[in-house]
Amino acid sequence: MPELDLADLAGRIFAGERAALARGITLVESTRQDHRRAAAALLERLVASSEAALRIGVSGVPGVGKSTFIERFGSMLTGAGRRVAVLAVDPSSARSGGSILGDKTRMAHLAADPNAFVRPSPTSGTLGGVAGRTRETIRLCEAAGYDVVIVETVGVGQSETAVAEMTDLFLLLMLAGGGDQLQGLKKGVLELADIVAVNKADGENVARAGTAAAELAGAFRILGGESARVPVRCVSGLTGTGLPELWREIEEQRDARTEGGAFEARRRAQDVRWLHALLEEGLRRRFLADPTLRAALSQAEQDIAAGSRSAPAAAEALLRSDDDSSPSS
Amino acid sequence: MPELDLADLAGRIFAGERAALARGITLVESTRQDHRRAAAALLERLVASSEAALRIGVSGVPGVGKSTFIERFGSMLTGAGRRVAVLAVDPSSARSGGSILGDKTRMAHLAADPNAFVRPSPTSGTLGGVAGRTRETIRLCEAAGYDVVIVETVGVGQSETAVAEMTDLFLLLMLAGGGDQLQGLKKGVLELADIVAVNKADGENVARAGTAAAELAGAFRILGGESARVPVRCVSGLTGTGLPELWREIEEQRDARTEGGAFEARRRAQDVRWLHALLEEGLRRRFLADPTLRAALSQAEQDIAAGSRSAPAAAEALLRSDDDSSPSS
Repeated sequence: MPELDLADLAGRIFAGERAALARGITLVESTRQDHRRAAAALLERLVASSEAALRIGVSGVPGVGKSTFIERFGSMLTGAGRRVAVLAVDPSSARSGGSILGDKTRMAHLAADPNAFVRPSPTSGTLGGVAGRTRETIRLCEAAGYDVVIVETVGVGQSETAVAEMTDLFLLLMLAGGGDQLQGLKKGVLELADIVAVNKADGENVARAGTAAAELAGAFRILGGESARVPVRCVSGLTGTGLPELWREIEEQRDARTEGGAFEARRRAQDVRWLHALLEEGLRRRFLADPTLRAALSQAEQDIAAGSRSAPAAAEALLRSDDDSSPSS
Repeated sequence: MPELDLADLAGRIFAGERAALARGITLVESTRQDHRRAAAALLERLVASSEAALRIGVSGVPGVGKSTFIERFGSMLTGAGRRVAVLAVDPSSARSGGSILGDKTRMAHLAADPNAFVRPSPTSGTLGGVAGRTRETIRLCEAAGYDVVIVETVGVGQSETAVAEMTDLFLLLMLAGGGDQLQGLKKGVLELADIVAVNKADGENVARAGTAAAELAGAFRILGGESARVPVRCVSGLTGTGLPELWREIEEQRDARTEGGAFEARRRAQDVRWLHALLEEGLRRRFLADPTLRAALSQAEQDIAAGSRSAPAAAEALLRSDDDSSPSS
């Protein structure tokens, strides 16, 4: 990346230049130390004047129809004059080399829409790292004037929690068909949902989807607690059925929370927790910069997994050797 | 605390001396640096030769009857020749000064039982800290020969996750009465449960409890995923109804997991995650030992909550000022 003019880059992102936005995202996703600092400085320039978008997390097991849903839902929103960005958190991409959004043709229509920005998922990094970068990417998209940011994730459990922590509303897509089709849903994901949508309510499947939605709503009521208030809707990413009603539901939830101050409070609390997460990530990165400590940690993990050491003693020893190697601190 | 002879203390804990166990627990709960190191050394002595107990997490909203249940359930187990320890994770104790187990008379019968050890909850510390100490206390109880360790928690959400992370099985107590009575249950807690027991299935309440259990089981099946396999039982902590069947269910789950290796694998994975949590806690503690950095962090939190700074820039600045103050690292 050539010499950066952050003021210029920030200005062009504000002006909504797609190339500048893409360059900003590349910057925040970089692991180079100088890029990390430049990214922080860029975000600092953008923080005060950004209009915050509505941030919507979307999840569901593979096969639930997320791409088709997002393509249709996003196009409906751009058709109504909104600007929509689609990002992804995909913890598997680092291992598999695959990516839930790697193939842009999956959302060909939306990707070609001048009022939409479809970002392929990052190609490397740990979940924490990717999730951290996704938060920064959300900010960049907001600065570039996108007023709905959709963060997509696969249904593997860990990434869902991360996405719920960086969005205003969490939408869970499900399928009709009862327990069998839902075996893939990991524990804990269901309870993150602010709204559940039974997808593929089209063709011969309409009645089944309706029954499934009624059953799910009944199950939520029985389970009680906060889940009892989660609305369950039928939608079709294929035909667009139910999408306007879904958007109205999202707006109603947003308005209800905005009125009581809960909307803003949730964002601020998310941001403070983000600070702590970044701090921990930074401290950990610095600790593991020492190859001796990296090797010692790896050995400790093996010993603990073999049952021959206790975690407190291993942690104590690791922290002590770090102390010894940094006599001034 | 006078001069410690760790070999002697470990020996007396192994011999099952209650006073030695209590002293060991006081040591692991201490925040003093020399105590922390002594505690780690003590655990290292105990790790290899401990017979691991079955660790059961028990939770439920206030009023669900946890104390009565644990007292009766624990007495049933000691009556069958087992040795039972009862611990608690109570994140509220630091703030309120109260404690879910502070009043031992709540479990007077069990506390007086020579085969039971009822530990009042720690009186201070953050959730992370208390949870960390509770894990070490579990190890001490196992070394002292207790073969069932019950970890009680209140239904506030955060502590449940911590307790599920340090136990083999998570038992959630609920009440008959549908959604209304369950409003207090926080999101995410339900999905931690390996077993759900509808408590207070006694007197006039038997039929209602049975209906509630059937409805809950039905709801779990509809929701599908891993929840579909969670058994729902009726019990009474007051009369003891259903407790032998509950114990059999617990043993069956344990045996099924032991056979496939999942039981041991879960423990090892918990221990490795514990190492990482301890390491992060230690790095954070060391970072915050500098009063200038503590003040800067507090200011950054305020700025972020006010919306005038971005988390990445604040984290970057904090980490940089730490670098500057430790030139050798």
